[in-house]
Amino acid sequence: MSSTYGEHLKLSIFGQSHGAAIGMTLDGIPAGLPVDMEQLQHFLNRRAPGRQDFSTPRREADRPEFLSGVVGGYTCGAPIAAVIPNTNTHSGDYANLKDCPRPGHADYTAQVKYGGYQDAAGGGHFSGRLTAPMCIAGGLCLQWLAGKGIAIAAHLASVGNVADTPLDPMTPALSAIGTDFPVIDPAAGHAMRRAIADAKTHGDSLGGVIECAVTGLPAGLGEPIFGGMESRLAAILYGIPAVKGVEFGAGFAAAKMLGSQHNDPFAAENGRIYTLTNHAGGILGGITNGMPLLFRVAVKPTPSISLSQQSVSLTRLEPTALVVKGRHDPCIAPRAVPVVEAAAAIAIMDAYLAQTKF
Amino acid sequence: MSSTYGEHLKLSIFGQSHGAAIGMTLDGIPAGLPVDMEQLQHFLNRRAPGRQDFSTPRREADRPEFLSGVVGGYTCGAPIAAVIPNTNTHSGDYANLKDCPRPGHADYTAQVKYGGYQDAAGGGHFSGRLTAPMCIAGGLCLQWLAGKGIAIAAHLASVGNVADTPLDPMTPALSAIGTDFPVIDPAAGHAMRRAIADAKTHGDSLGGVIECAVTGLPAGLGEPIFGGMESRLAAILYGIPAVKGVEFGAGFAAAKMLGSQHNDPFAAENGRIYTLTNHAGGILGGITNGMPLLFRVAVKPTPSISLSQQSVSLTRLEPTALVVKGRHDPCIAPRAVPVVEAAAAIAIMDAYLAQTKF
Amino acid sequence: MSSTYGEHLKLSIFGQSHGAAIGMTLDGIPAGLPVDMEQLQHFLNRRAPGRQDFSTPRREADRPEFLSGVVGGYTCGAPIAAVIPNTNTHSGDYANLKDCPRPGHADYTAQVKYGGYQDAAGGGHFSGRLTAPMCIAGGLCLQWLAGKGIAIAAHLASVGNVADTPLDPMTPALSAIGTDFPVIDPAAGHAMRRAIADAKTHGDSLGGVIECAVTGLPAGLGEPIFGGMESRLAAILYGIPAVKGVEFGAGFAAAKMLGSQHNDPFAAENGRIYTLTNHAGGILGGITNGMPLLFRVAVKPTPSISLSQQSVSLTRLEPTALVVKGRHDPCIAPRAVPVVEAAAAIAIMDAYLAQTKF
Amino acid sequence: MSSTYGEHLKLSIFGQSHGAAIGMTLDGIPAGLPVDMEQLQHFLNRRAPGRQDFSTPRREADRPEFLSGVVGGYTCGAPIAAVIPNTNTHSGDYANLKDCPRPGHADYTAQVKYGGYQDAAGGGHFSGRLTAPMCIAGGLCLQWLAGKGIAIAAHLASVGNVADTPLDPMTPALSAIGTDFPVIDPAAGHAMRRAIADAKTHGDSLGGVIECAVTGLPAGLGEPIFGGMESRLAAILYGIPAVKGVEFGAGFAAAKMLGSQHNDPFAAENGRIYTLTNHAGGILGGITNGMPLLFRVAVKPTPSISLSQQSVSLTRLEPTALVVKGRHDPCIAPRAVPVVEAAAAIAIMDAYLAQTKF
Repeated sequence: MSSTYGEHLKLSIFGQSHGAAIGMTLDGIPAGLPVDMEQLQHFLNRRAPGRQDFSTPRREADRPEFLSGVVGGYTCGAPIAAVIPNTNTHSGDYANLKDCPRPGHADYTAQVKYGGYQDAAGGGHFSGRLTAPMCIAGGLCLQWLAGKGIAIAAHLASVGNVADTPLDPMTPALSAIGTDFPVIDPAAGHAMRRAIADAKTHGDSLGGVIECAVTGLPAGLGEPIFGGMESRLAAILYGIPAVKGVEFGAGFAAAKMLGSQHNDPFAAENGRIYTLTNHAGGILGGITNGMPLLFRVAVKPTPSISLSQQSVSLTRLEPTALVVKGRHDPCIAPRAVPVVEAAAAIAIMDAYLAQTKF
Repeated sequence: MSSTYGEHLKLSIFGQSHGAAIGMTLDGIPAGLPVDMEQLQHFLNRRAPGRQDFSTPRREADRPEFLSGVVGGYTCGAPIAAVIPNTNTHSGDYANLKDCPRPGHADYTAQVKYGGYQDAAGGGHFSGRLTAPMCIAGGLCLQWLAGKGIAIAAHLASVGNVADTPLDPMTPALSAIGTDFPVIDPAAGHAMRRAIADAKTHGDSLGGVIECAVTGLPAGLGEPIFGGMESRLAAILYGIPAVKGVEFGAGFAAAKMLGSQHNDPFAAENGRIYTLTNHAGGILGGITNGMPLLFRVAVKPTPSISLSQQSVSLTRLEPTALVVKGRHDPCIAPRAVPVVEAAAAIAIMDAYLAQTKF
Repeated sequence: MSSTYGEHLKLSIFGQSHGAAIGMTLDGIPAGLPVDMEQLQHFLNRRAPGRQDFSTPRREADRPEFLSGVVGGYTCGAPIAAVIPNTNTHSGDYANLKDCPRPGHADYTAQVKYGGYQDAAGGGHFSGRLTAPMCIAGGLCLQWLAGKGIAIAAHLASVGNVADTPLDPMTPALSAIGTDFPVIDPAAGHAMRRAIADAKTHGDSLGGVIECAVTGLPAGLGEPIFGGMESRLAAILYGIPAVKGVEFGAGFAAAKMLGSQHNDPFAAENGRIYTLTNHAGGILGGITNGMPLLFRVAVKPTPSISLSQQSVSLTRLEPTALVVKGRHDPCIAPRAVPVVEAAAAIAIMDAYLAQTKF
Repeated sequence: MSSTYGEHLKLSIFGQSHGAAIGMTLDGIPAGLPVDMEQLQHFLNRRAPGRQDFSTPRREADRPEFLSGVVGGYTCGAPIAAVIPNTNTHSGDYANLKDCPRPGHADYTAQVKYGGYQDAAGGGHFSGRLTAPMCIAGGLCLQWLAGKGIAIAAHLASVGNVADTPLDPMTPALSAIGTDFPVIDPAAGHAMRRAIADAKTHGDSLGGVIECAVTGLPAGLGEPIFGGMESRLAAILYGIPAVKGVEFGAGFAAAKMLGSQHNDPFAAENGRIYTLTNHAGGILGGITNGMPLLFRVAVKPTPSISLSQQSVSLTRLEPTALVVKGRHDPCIAPRAVPVVEAAAAIAIMDAYLAQTKF
C-alpha cells in the first residue's frame, strides 16, 4: 500500500508539492498499447490549476516528461515513468506550518508520523498536487479503456447546496456533461460557480459530491470478497485528498429501500442479459454485471481558508490563531472531477488485467 | 486482492456456503499474543445465525477449529489457520439458481466470471456466511487491539426508516450500545425489530446503516495516498457482502459544509493535542490524529426475499418468475454489526503492524 | 512474503509439524480446471514418509481433505483450501529442544524470532512436513500445466559423492527417470541407496543435488528484472527446507566458460526458433525462450543425526551434548525430488497466469 | 514482481538503456534516516562504466538526481525517487538487433513477449544499465544498515579460471577487499585483469563468481518458508542480469558433506550464542542466526562479444552471422560486485523493516 496501488498493474506515486518534481511509475502494462500525448495533455489540463476563476492562481503547465515505457507512440512493455517538474513554488508561504498545523490538513498527522522530518512545504507528499501523477496514469488508462469501448465520465452532482441533474443509472448521458464546467445542467453550473465565488469572497470554502459513471464494461470484472470492484475503486478513490465518502449505485439511499424495491430484476433481449433498474450500480457480489457502473464521492470543503482559525503551537503547546497564506482553491471539487475519472480508470484497468485465461 | 487482504498481515478467506468448511488463514501476526477462545466464541455468536427473531433460522454453531498458529493460548508466530465445518446445508434449495439468477445476488456475475463452474449452492464463495471467517480474524484482532487500549464498537445507526441515537464523534459511548440488540436507544431498537418483523411478514427485506467508532487509537497510523486509513478500511468493508456505501467522519454531509464549519480546530491540554470537533472522523491525510475514528456503512436490503421476482433463464434467455427459497435474514444489518467491527479491527491491526521502526 | 507466495496466484502454507493439521490455500486459480484426486494422491505419495528404506519411519498417509475451491472435479473459481490432519505425532520426542537447539535446525533462530512462543515440537512451522501442502498446490499445478503440454520432472543428480547421469539440456528424457527411485541410471540409484544406508548405520546423514527440467514451455513466460523466471523459481525453491543452492542452465559452471562457448546460437527450423545449445537453461533476460528450462538445487545433509553433537543450553548458556531423538531421514534429497517439481510447477503456473492480454 | 521488489519497502526500477532516463522509486523507508550523497556517488562510481581497462568505454557519470523523498539530508517519509538521465547513447549501433537477436541476450525473448513493441536499443529495459538505479536504492540501504553496524562487502571469488582467496566464513575480513579491484589477493587480481584483457583481445568474454558477506546482522531476520533470507536474497540477486547461480554458506558443496560435518555446533561465550563453524552461511530455517551471512553468485560471461556468432533473422527465419557492435565489458563480474552488495542491502533492509513489534 502506502503510495503504491494495484494488483496486476503497479502504480507508484512520488513527489512533494514543493520538491524537485512529482511523478509516477506504472508497471505491468502490456506492450503495444497506443499513447496519444496530446489527448493526455488535454486531460491533464482539466485538473491543472490556474485556469479557471474557481481555482488557485498557482499556474503550472503540468506537462509530463516521459522517461521510459513509451517508444514511438506505443507502450513498450517496460515500466512507464513520467515526471512533472515543480517550477512555481513559494515555499516561504509555508514556513510556519511545521509548528502550527492547519486545521483539516495532514500537517499535524505528518508531524506525528515523521517526527519532524516530513517535507512540510505545500503539504509535501500529502498535497493535492500529487493527484497530477495520478492523472497521468489514469489518463493513459482512460485511453486504453476507450479502445475497448469503455467510457468513464464524472460530473459535479453538487457543490455546497447546489445540485446538478443526476446521471440516469440506466443510460448515463456522459456526453451531456459540460467540457467547460463539469455539470449536466448549465444553470446548476452557474449557481455552483456563484456559490464558490461567494465562499471565496468570505475567505471560506465549499465541498461537493462527484458522480461518476462507467459505460461499456463487460460483465465479469472484479474478484470475490476483498477483490470486488467496490473495494478496488474505494481504495484508490480514498487516495484522493479530501474524499470522505464513497457510495455505489443507490449507496446510502439503499439502506432505506425495501428489498423488493432495491433488487434489480433481470431481463433478456436479443441474447443480452440486463437489469431493468440499476440500484446496484453495475456491481453484484463485487463483480460487474454489464450495466453502467455508478458511484458517488464526497469531497470535503478545502481546508485551506483565509479566515483566521484556531490552532496550536506544537512546540509551545499553546493556542495560536492561524491565517493560512498561499494560493488555494475555494472548492476543490471541480478540479477533482478528472481525478475521480482517472482513479476509476486505473482501478478498472487493473481489474481488467487481473483477469486470467489459462 | 481477490480473497486476500492486508499489507503486513495477510488474511486469506476460503470456503463456499455449502462446501465442506469455511475458514481463514492469518499470516504475519507476531508471536506471543494471547488468544482468549471463549471471548472469541462470544464474539462469533453475535454474528451467528439462528439466534434471533430477525435472523435466518439456519442454525450453526460457528465454532472454529484452530489448525495452527496458536499454542498454549498464545500465537506462536506461524500462520493462524481456523476452519468452521459446514454442517447444516440444504443444497437442494438452490438447485434452480444456476439457470435463474436471483436479483441482487452474485448468481449472474459468478456465472459470467466462472462460466458455470462456480459453486452456486447457497451463494458459494459469495455467501454472507463467508463473513464468519472474517469474524475469526477480526475477533482475534479485537482482542489484541484491546490489549493496547483500542476499543472498536458499532451500532445500527438506522434500519429502514428507523434511526438510533448517533454516537458522539468526540466521546463515543461505546459501552452504551446494547449487547442484546446493537442500538443505543432501546426504543429505536424495538422499532427496528418491529420494522424487520413487518418486512418479513410481507416477504420483503430491509437495509440499514451501521456506525462504528474506534477509541484509544494513537496518532500516526496509516500511510500516505493509497495507504491511508480510509483506503484500508473501505477496501475491507466493501468485502462484506451487501455494503454499498462507506463514509468517514462527516462523510457525505461534509460536502454541504463550509470549510470554516468542517475544519476541526486544534487545541492542547496537558501536553496532549486534540481537536475541538471531529468532522474528520479521526483521520487527516489518511493518518489517524488521535481522535476517535468514526465511519458509517450502508447495508442494502437482503436480496433474498420471498416475494416473486422477475428474472431470466440463462439457458433459454426468457423471463422467469423467481421465488427464492431457503432461509434468509429479512435484514442482514444487525448481524453485520460485529462483521463491521471485525473488518475495522483487521484493517487497524494491519496498519499498526505496517508501522516501522529502524 | 512469509508463508505466502505468488504474484497472480496466492499460495498460503500453514501448520506446524505436530499441530492439529497442516494445509494450504491457493487463490487466483481460474474456474473450470480439472482436478484428478487420484493422480494428486499418487504424487503426494512420492513425498510421503515411511514408504522407503531411506526415509523416516514416521508413516502418515498425507491424504488431503479439500475444504473448498473444487466442485465436481473442477476448480470453481473460489480459493482452494486443503488440509492434512496430523495423526502420528510424538511431541515428547522434542521436549528438550526448546532449551537445547539442534545444530543445523531452525530451533535457535525460531527461539530468537518468536521469543519462546514458537511451536518447537517437531520443528513446528519450520518442519520439512510443511512441504506436503506445497505438494498439494504443486501437484495440482502439475496437472494443469500437463494439460498445456508442459512437463516437469526432477531426478537425483547426486547423493553424497554418487552422481546420476545428467539430463540432456537439449532433449531431457524425463520419462527415463525411475519411478521407484528418482534416477536415470539404476546403478547410480543402487549406489546412492547404499550410501544412504551406510550413513544411517553410522548415525550420520547425506545431502544431494536435484536436477529438474521443464519441457513444453512457451517462449515469453516471466517478467523483466525481479519478475524473471530465475527470481520466481529461486524464491519458492529456497522455501523448501535444506535447500542451500540454486543454479540455472550451466549455472556456476558458466562462470568458467568463455562467452563464445556459453552463448547459445540461434537457429530456425520449420518456422520455429531454437538454440543449438542450452547453457542458458531456457531463460534469457528472465524470460523463457522455448527451450527446456533446466535448474539444479543443492540439498544439505539432514541436520537431524543420531550422533552426539555439541549444542548449548539457552537458559544456562553452557555447552550441552545433544543426541537428537525422533524419526528422521538419513537423506532428505530423494523425498525432496517431488517437492522441487511441485515448487517449479507453482512458480510456472504463477508466471503463466501473470501474463496479460488486453 | 515484474520490475518491483520488496515486502515492506517497495522498490520500482524503470528505464531503458537508450531512453530518456533510468531511475527508481523506493517507498516504505522511515523518515529521519540520513543520506550522504557524496558517499552514494562514491558507491555508484564503483559500478559506473568507462573507468577501468576491463570495462566498456561508454562513459556516463551515473549522477542521480533526487526528485523526492530526501529533504535537508534526511529521508522525509515520502517515497524516494531518483533518476539518471541517459546522455551518451548510440542507438544506431543496435539497429539490426530487432531482426537478428544476439545469442545470450534478451533480444529474442523480449521480441516474443512484447511482440515487436519492445525498446530494442541497447537492450532496452533488460540492459545491465538498469543496475544503476538498483545501486541508488542499494547504496542508500548500505548507509542505513551501516548505521546499525551491519557491513556488506563482496569480492571476485573467481574470474574465468583465476580464483581469489575466499572469505573466512567465521570472520570475513571485509576490509581486506581491494578498493581499486575487488579482490583480497592482489596477485589474483592481476591474473584476473590479464585474463580479461586476453579475452578482450580475442573478441571474447569471461564470467566470474562473486562472494559476498554480511557482518553485524542481528539474529532473527527473515520469515519462515517463502519469506526466508535465502528466498529474499535470491529473488533480488537473480534480478541482476547475467546471474545464473546463487548459493548460501557451503552451498552446492554442502550436498557432498555429511551431516556431522555440515551441522554447525552451537557454543556460548559471555552470554552470546554462536556457532563453531558457519556452513549455514548465517541462515537457519530462513532466519539469520547472528553469524556472518555468506553467499556466492555465478555471473555468466558477457554475451556481447566481438566474434562472429550464429543467429537467425526473425523475419526471414534463416541463419545469419551476427557481429555485435557497440561497447561492452569483456567481463561484467567486476562491475557487478557493487550491484551484488546493493541487492543484498535492499533485501536485508526489507527484511529488517518487515519485523514487527506490537
